[in-house]
Amino acid sequence: MLQKLANLRRQHKELINIMPLQTGGLLTQAAKEALIEFGDGYSTCDFCLGSLCDITNPPVREFVHELLPPFLGSEVATITHGARETIFMVMHSLAQPGDSIVVDGNRHYTTMVAAERVGLNVIETPHSGHPEFKVDVDDYIPLIENHKPKLILLTYPDGNHGNLPDAKRLGDIAQQYNVPFILNGAYAVGRMPVSMAEVGADFIVASGHKSMASAGPSGVLGMKKKWEEIVLRKSSLYSNKEIELLGCTLRGVPLITLMASFPEVQERVLHWDEQVSKAQWFSSELEKLGIKQLGEKPHRHDLLHFESPMLYDISKRVRERGYFLYRELKERNIWGPQPGLTKSFKVSTFAASREQLSLVLDSFRAILNKYC
Amino acid sequence: MLQKLANLRRQHKELINIMPLQTGGLLTQAAKEALIEFGDGYSTCDFCLGSLCDITNPPVREFVHELLPPFLGSEVATITHGARETIFMVMHSLAQPGDSIVVDGNRHYTTMVAAERVGLNVIETPHSGHPEFKVDVDDYIPLIENHKPKLILLTYPDGNHGNLPDAKRLGDIAQQYNVPFILNGAYAVGRMPVSMAEVGADFIVASGHKSMASAGPSGVLGMKKKWEEIVLRKSSLYSNKEIELLGCTLRGVPLITLMASFPEVQERVLHWDEQVSKAQWFSSELEKLGIKQLGEKPHRHDLLHFESPMLYDISKRVRERGYFLYRELKERNIWGPQPGLTKSFKVSTFAASREQLSLVLDSFRAILNKYC
Repeated sequence: MLQKLANLRRQHKELINIMPLQTGGLLTQAAKEALIEFGDGYSTCDFCLGSLCDITNPPVREFVHELLPPFLGSEVATITHGARETIFMVMHSLAQPGDSIVVDGNRHYTTMVAAERVGLNVIETPHSGHPEFKVDVDDYIPLIENHKPKLILLTYPDGNHGNLPDAKRLGDIAQQYNVPFILNGAYAVGRMPVSMAEVGADFIVASGHKSMASAGPSGVLGMKKKWEEIVLRKSSLYSNKEIELLGCTLRGVPLITLMASFPEVQERVLHWDEQVSKAQWFSSELEKLGIKQLGEKPHRHDLLHFESPMLYDISKRVRERGYFLYRELKERNIWGPQPGLTKSFKVSTFAASREQLSLVLDSFRAILNKYC
Repeated sequence: MLQKLANLRRQHKELINIMPLQTGGLLTQAAKEALIEFGDGYSTCDFCLGSLCDITNPPVREFVHELLPPFLGSEVATITHGARETIFMVMHSLAQPGDSIVVDGNRHYTTMVAAERVGLNVIETPHSGHPEFKVDVDDYIPLIENHKPKLILLTYPDGNHGNLPDAKRLGDIAQQYNVPFILNGAYAVGRMPVSMAEVGADFIVASGHKSMASAGPSGVLGMKKKWEEIVLRKSSLYSNKEIELLGCTLRGVPLITLMASFPEVQERVLHWDEQVSKAQWFSSELEKLGIKQLGEKPHRHDLLHFESPMLYDISKRVRERGYFLYRELKERNIWGPQPGLTKSFKVSTFAASREQLSLVLDSFRAILNKYC
């Protein structure tokens, strides 16, 4: 066992990556270099004067206070351990045990667990069910009127189908009912243009390892100025330490990769239209093979969920069962659908080129031909 | 600014490191390699089946469930974002807002902030004050009797003076009064032999980036089996997701460095007696120069706090003020005392060899000769 620890290797490192959790977190070259430079524990804190977000060397202060707010469309920003920790932090600041909140029916499981950690009562909106699983944000209205929630949350897009509900319309609703609105942009910020101000949200949550070309775990929170004294309230004993951050959060190498990748991340969101057309093309080509896309159509995000009854049928009659698809793809240098799944699976087209995706399409074609 | 982000460099990387936050977190060669291998966001989760601590490739499950408990002297272990997050997690599980806890007068500031985040009333034991700042654990007894705390915490050693109070005696007291006992071993676990079972604590808290040769942020929690269903209680909706962990905590590269360094960390704690004699020798040599060690004597930890009125006197008459010491040491390839400090400063002898520490001593001698 100790021997295994001393030689840790990844099997999927050089493959074409269409794994939805990973495509937005692949490091840039600058991040790879920073990773090595700041690998040693606490090496970000050489010149700390008491607050992580105020360190000027490396330039954490400029990154957090000058670069992040305009990028997020927020007035204030901070760094966190990840999207789930950020959502917990906001819930823990704004709501008390027993309070209600309203969230979309496509919320990530961590939204429910974060609410449970605070002791909140969660009301979910419906969604349209199979095959599109769409959330209509007007469904928040009766739930807000009935439950008087302390906050509302929208997952934008959701991690299961990559659906993008009408966040701006929900921003209007939130303002009309004067209820704080968290936009969970773990799969949006760093991939596509998204502005908290334009949406009209109070908080925007981002994930470094999911969508900002950063090592994990890492996250970002943007908010309106008026929430700063609540969510970033200071300790009564230590006037430069935020209670919800326990003083400092991301005190290490994931912060450095987040910073090092930021110039490229800022640039790449400007090319989102190319990402969307690539995803739509890939989806339509896979559909021609009888593999049906779930979620919104036309799709507006690189995260795609497919239903593939033929692959499932194959899995029932081969020795490896569902793992045959993983093996067949891996043999073709492709890493993506969760090992074991065939009935339905998720992929992301974000990191792969059209040429690589053509190889993926050819591979699905070849696999179907081989077994059918 | 974007240009600065694209080229992040550390100034202290190759220097003799006696900086107390950093000496225990310097990466091993195995950790450096694992860092690169698993740098991309979420790359630890290739083969996740729903729970981070159950992943077998890389061998997280074996590390957390088989290797950590015997190393910690605990019955159960898990991984966290760091010591402060771990302490919050235990407090949040065991106590309610308004409850009281008793902690040592040398506690880290984050213990107070974590308690404030939960809404707890904190009672601190006294310490002996200047120059030794010793905590007598018998001082917990009247505080336990008067305040009926929901838990007690001991910092072992404290991060300010490196004092090691009588943890085993406090374990007996905790058992006698039946009060859960957290041992904060952020500066102990990974440096020196320490066993939760031998101390008689209920919880042991460790820091990967402070003392386990790991990238930051990262932490470890060990506990008695009887606390597992409270601290690691599962979500009512997701039966494999721990509420306090929000499903998964350390989902990324700090976990990998923690694992990769573990074989060497396990080995190095066996040589703690050499570390102690090295620290005592360094301290006695520095005292010969008129720089007085604070904290317990003879000292039993590599974390050392010194008082240096002559250096402070110099700082008052040189152009750079307190920063002259930082510059003088840096010119001699030494990185350690916080830039700006001269009146008193902390160092750690953990990572430097006796030869390197001789150079440090020569440097202090030369600096004093130069200015006095």
